Amino acid sequence: MADPRAAVVLVTDYGADDSYAGSLVGALWSADANARWAIGTHGVPPGDVLAGAYHVKALARSFPAGAVICAVVDPGVGTDRRAIAIEADGMRLVAPDNGLCTWLWEEAGERRCVAVPVPPEASPTFAGRDLFAPIAARLAAGAALEDCGPRIDDPVLLPAAFPRRVGTALYARVCVVDRFGNAITTARLGDLAGARPVAASWNGGGTRRVARTYGDIGGGLALVAGSAGHFEIAARGVAAATRGGPGAGESVRITLGPG
Amino acid sequence: MADPRAAVVLVTDYGADDSYAGSLVGALWSADANARWAIGTHGVPPGDVLAGAYHVKALARSFPAGAVICAVVDPGVGTDRRAIAIEADGMRLVAPDNGLCTWLWEEAGERRCVAVPVPPEASPTFAGRDLFAPIAARLAAGAALEDCGPRIDDPVLLPAAFPRRVGTALYARVCVVDRFGNAITTARLGDLAGARPVAASWNGGGTRRVARTYGDIGGGLALVAGSAGHFEIAARGVAAATRGGPGAGESVRITLGPG
Amino acid sequence: MADPRAAVVLVTDYGADDSYAGSLVGALWSADANARWAIGTHGVPPGDVLAGAYHVKALARSFPAGAVICAVVDPGVGTDRRAIAIEADGMRLVAPDNGLCTWLWEEAGERRCVAVPVPPEASPTFAGRDLFAPIAARLAAGAALEDCGPRIDDPVLLPAAFPRRVGTALYARVCVVDRFGNAITTARLGDLAGARPVAASWNGGGTRRVARTYGDIGGGLALVAGSAGHFEIAARGVAAATRGGPGAGESVRITLGPG
Repeated sequence: MADPRAAVVLVTDYGADDSYAGSLVGALWSADANARWAIGTHGVPPGDVLAGAYHVKALARSFPAGAVICAVVDPGVGTDRRAIAIEADGMRLVAPDNGLCTWLWEEAGERRCVAVPVPPEASPTFAGRDLFAPIAARLAAGAALEDCGPRIDDPVLLPAAFPRRVGTALYARVCVVDRFGNAITTARLGDLAGARPVAASWNGGGTRRVARTYGDIGGGLALVAGSAGHFEIAARGVAAATRGGPGAGESVRITLGPG
Repeated sequence: MADPRAAVVLVTDYGADDSYAGSLVGALWSADANARWAIGTHGVPPGDVLAGAYHVKALARSFPAGAVICAVVDPGVGTDRRAIAIEADGMRLVAPDNGLCTWLWEEAGERRCVAVPVPPEASPTFAGRDLFAPIAARLAAGAALEDCGPRIDDPVLLPAAFPRRVGTALYARVCVVDRFGNAITTARLGDLAGARPVAASWNGGGTRRVARTYGDIGGGLALVAGSAGHFEIAARGVAAATRGGPGAGESVRITLGPG
Repeated sequence: MADPRAAVVLVTDYGADDSYAGSLVGALWSADANARWAIGTHGVPPGDVLAGAYHVKALARSFPAGAVICAVVDPGVGTDRRAIAIEADGMRLVAPDNGLCTWLWEEAGERRCVAVPVPPEASPTFAGRDLFAPIAARLAAGAALEDCGPRIDDPVLLPAAFPRRVGTALYARVCVVDRFGNAITTARLGDLAGARPVAASWNGGGTRRVARTYGDIGGGLALVAGSAGHFEIAARGVAAATRGGPGAGESVRITLGPG
């Protein structure tokens, strides 16, 4: 078997209980009968662009170069927000221009962005089906980024995605609480700049434990470097919140020591 | 790559937390190692045939002709309800004969239906795996509808699917409340017959606003023509119910004005 | 189309709302661009190995021989629990060695097991992506079981999976409550040894009805042989619990009569 299609990876806040997610696949199939796709996740909290940006980044780390992430968390559907397509270190992304690309874009060495025009016949309420999926299918089938629209250089980025360093403190926030109750923060291994995390605190709680795996945590909470390179507050076998951990959106301060 | 298989699109009320949905795919794969399928949705509320019929219709609008929707919302599994296969304007459907085909059948120009016999070895509790999926795989691999059973002309349709027009009022009901809280009704653009919707009301509430997109709604509720051509009661950025909108199953009266 | 890849069937407790499940697919794709996979389920309750073992078995009954189930319910991730790969009557399984293989292994005639070494570069928190999925992809692409590690003969089995027979009583437990509220037990048709079930009881309830289909149950509860050959306590059209049925993890005593 030669030359399989590149993957289209779907990331949305559509949930699994409606047919919107299935209709995205229908649009891929209509655009390219040989399309191949994977569900990245349809479980982004409705309208939560920061969480969507995290999942875009996490998925980009596991798929091979050439994959096309089709991300639709789009509270501005039907307004005049732009649509964009990006190539970042060999990974592609098609999305509304609202910050979904933030980490993928900011962490890439080689990157290009184009603005994708909206087809006049698109439904004003379902851009995923009528705009984003067809473009993703075209890219996966071999189209060049520049075939999809004119170059732009300023995709929208989310300021909330970037931790702030003040002395020995790194101020971050919880961007995702995962199914196991781990509170994943915006703070990344790359934000340490040679330092070493020694503690974390948040409104009403904190921990001085840093663990390599969930199994090492023991009975309380610990700071763990998760599988996408972001620090998370985790407990062992239960949700961090049940041990006093921070909730979605809350601020977390990570204290740094010498590296 | 030539001649890919037609899509089998799965629509069930199995949910995502058991292995029933996965077993459907196993049955497809056992029937045809080259089967290709998509999850339409497994999130139909248990036993809700009207919601299932809506999702069948919505998915039929996004997949290319030739696709085979395999819909299993089947409160009568193990009883003597018929099983059917349909071809409607080039789209196929395999389903229990309980009304899942209602909109697909009623809105089609060219349509045919056959009764599908139940294999004697089928589990009395899992017709999806043992009856519907194998037939869907056969159709997607090229079998003709008439190879699957004898022609019939009277598939079961759901009376609740069809709005009733009385003077300037169109009486409909909410068939699906989607993840974003939009209350999707049974009233379709095609039910307007040249008129124009000017207001909607329901038990305890109403709106005189008609909007083209969610972004246009502003602070209250509006009537919007959704992506499958059904009118919905929607709010901007929150569930319609939080602004007093109607719940699943509730009646909605749409007032019509001159077109 | 010749020689399609064997199926990789994913069974996890990752849920659908994060990107862990999608990252598993990315890992498959990275290991083999021609990989073909199906979602078995991502809805195993977090850490519930017995429920995972049930879904592994149920899925093995619907996929064709050669399929590779990649099961990751792994409360011991990051500890020194072993990883294993199994071949059982032609079906393959890759999983942590914690009992997920219990029924698949115990019910097989021909079976072999190997211990799979952990790659040194694997994330300590995400063995599904970095260990189990790549091995599953290799097996599905044609690797032999013995290529994946040294033979072992003692995979971990779950004692709780096996009912205990005492005279005319078969003591089992509820391993899964499915979406429809059926309470699926560990008692199997094969545990009857020629006898016939005549009643079931549990803490606070019981039934003397044994039904072939859900439609036959009528107004109360009945014992039904489900689609994977396990007995379940079921009601018609509602969750068994609403009629006083047993909950997840509860003990159920099945009374046997002459066959």
